[in-house]
Amino acid sequence: MSLQSIKYSRGSLDILDQLLLPVQSKYVAVRGVEDGWKVINKMQVRGAPAIAIVGCLSLAVEIYPEEFENKKRLRQEVEGKLNYLVSARPTAVNMKIAADELLALANDLTKDETIDVAAMKDRFLNATEAMLEKDIADNRAIGAHGAKAILKRVAETAGAPTGTTGPVRVLTHCNTGSLATAGYGTALGVVRQLAELGKLEHVYCTETRPYNQGARLTAYELVHEKFPATLVLDSMVAALLRAKNVAGVVVGADRVAANGDTANKIGTYQIAVVAKHHGVPFYVAAPLTSIDLAIPGGDHIIIEERPDREMTHVGEHRIAAPGINCWNPAFDVTPASLITGIITERGVFKPEELKEAITKLLES
Amino acid sequence: MSLQSIKYSRGSLDILDQLLLPVQSKYVAVRGVEDGWKVINKMQVRGAPAIAIVGCLSLAVEIYPEEFENKKRLRQEVEGKLNYLVSARPTAVNMKIAADELLALANDLTKDETIDVAAMKDRFLNATEAMLEKDIADNRAIGAHGAKAILKRVAETAGAPTGTTGPVRVLTHCNTGSLATAGYGTALGVVRQLAELGKLEHVYCTETRPYNQGARLTAYELVHEKFPATLVLDSMVAALLRAKNVAGVVVGADRVAANGDTANKIGTYQIAVVAKHHGVPFYVAAPLTSIDLAIPGGDHIIIEERPDREMTHVGEHRIAAPGINCWNPAFDVTPASLITGIITERGVFKPEELKEAITKLLES
Repeated sequence: MSLQSIKYSRGSLDILDQLLLPVQSKYVAVRGVEDGWKVINKMQVRGAPAIAIVGCLSLAVEIYPEEFENKKRLRQEVEGKLNYLVSARPTAVNMKIAADELLALANDLTKDETIDVAAMKDRFLNATEAMLEKDIADNRAIGAHGAKAILKRVAETAGAPTGTTGPVRVLTHCNTGSLATAGYGTALGVVRQLAELGKLEHVYCTETRPYNQGARLTAYELVHEKFPATLVLDSMVAALLRAKNVAGVVVGADRVAANGDTANKIGTYQIAVVAKHHGVPFYVAAPLTSIDLAIPGGDHIIIEERPDREMTHVGEHRIAAPGINCWNPAFDVTPASLITGIITERGVFKPEELKEAITKLLES
Repeated sequence: MSLQSIKYSRGSLDILDQLLLPVQSKYVAVRGVEDGWKVINKMQVRGAPAIAIVGCLSLAVEIYPEEFENKKRLRQEVEGKLNYLVSARPTAVNMKIAADELLALANDLTKDETIDVAAMKDRFLNATEAMLEKDIADNRAIGAHGAKAILKRVAETAGAPTGTTGPVRVLTHCNTGSLATAGYGTALGVVRQLAELGKLEHVYCTETRPYNQGARLTAYELVHEKFPATLVLDSMVAALLRAKNVAGVVVGADRVAANGDTANKIGTYQIAVVAKHHGVPFYVAAPLTSIDLAIPGGDHIIIEERPDREMTHVGEHRIAAPGINCWNPAFDVTPASLITGIITERGVFKPEELKEAITKLLES
């Protein structure tokens, strides 16, 4: 069973407190929307999909034991509490999108004269729970497609039939695992799938300065899973690819443009350049929701610059000389030309195939 | 006047306490070999050339006010105290080499019947002081040759006469400045020279994990000099070279092999790969003493692996998940094919010219 950052059953929700990681592993009970608001606001839960799902599930936990006079009352409560949850981190757009979807559902159910208030509540709970299940199912599909693509390429390179080659070494960046999603993970889902297939020889994760998601979170997940794993610094990727026989790099994505250009955590672009130099395939793992066909290319993605303090301090400890300027872009853009394949829950696409393939999938 | 990490005049020596940097700038008086031993042993001074010079100068300070009965007594004192200084950090080979040289000089002077004990002491002090002066003079020469090479290439690329192009942006890695040498610095000496020529638009320095020499020491020197400077993380070099118009990268060297392959601080190789990808010239700045013609190529250089703790902790603060394995090579090897030029105190050489050029220089 892979690390569960969100533990849910009807009427009960617990989340792994990410503020205490990696030193302490402690679950926090979320008993309703007030707790949901707090864990999101205090960043005890992080990662765009995880925030949305914890928010919505906190509402499910809250309304589950309640009795509602009528459907209108239920709808009112849902609307008010969703708005409250959105206010916990106003910039987390996934929570807003999920809230809009659930509110639309509540409106539809209110109007549907074939169901009573109990049935409406039940359908509403089902829809909320389906979000959790869908995210995990999508991640499992990403993992399966990604593992297959990596192994296929290794076999092709070796001139051997697929499935006959041995376990592989892979590298990942930042955290894209159970701690960033509803569970299983995207790029880390590919790693999990390789392990489930008995095909993971070793996984390397980068520290991912300045917020150290690799060293703190990915390393935590890898230790938890007992995967053969090693932490490297962001400066070591080239030396690693030269020294060890790494079969592929797999990273997540914040946003993929129509041409395949990919915005992701700072350092991703550098790893892609280095992978290209060493002839190592470079994969981006992302659900279809991260692919934005409205963005033609990476030049249209605006890169957020973060405060200097993230670079100059670790906690309260100053690590950089006082007075030095910092450049702290949160993301970079990897051009499509450096990307071997984009792994989605519906298959792996070459960047140049992406737009047509996704358009077809959305139409079907 | 560039930052002085070693302040010396006959009879007086003060060193900048590097343990307190970058938060506090405090000089420590070194009144003799006991103080010299302590500052080396406690790592208040670091960097191979700096250790040797501080050790030898501490002996100069100690014997300067002393009266010696005869030349034999002086020679005995020199020998005993040099051995004592070598024991402060037995792995610091430069101190041992310097001690051997000074002892050979003391032996020669003892045998030389044309001089008395006062003259012997004076010659000995001169020789010791010459080490400091030579290191700084060599670094200034490296700086001048390097700045010229960078500006020449910029002019060539622009199709303009040398000297007519404007100030340039450069990137450096780790610390190669006054804090690592007797003064001025090697790669950072090139940056200083660009500034002295009015040709430094901006200098970027990398954090240089895990020991953060860039963020702590180089940034400290750049702030001290009031150079237009910005700190970037090790993961940002590719994004930086893509976003900003960087004219060249200049780094130091631990060891340069006969074919030009260069061992230097971990991360150097990655920067070289990324520079190549972006068409940015990549220079290595190193005194001739760092070039070892006895080593045919980089494959013969053994890379030290350092303790995990350097990666998992910042001071007492744990930053990585407990239980994770680490890979912590202290250095990497940049192949000659990625190096535009090797900047020495005697000129800039292409890697493929290095062996012949150095052999000629050593013969002449």
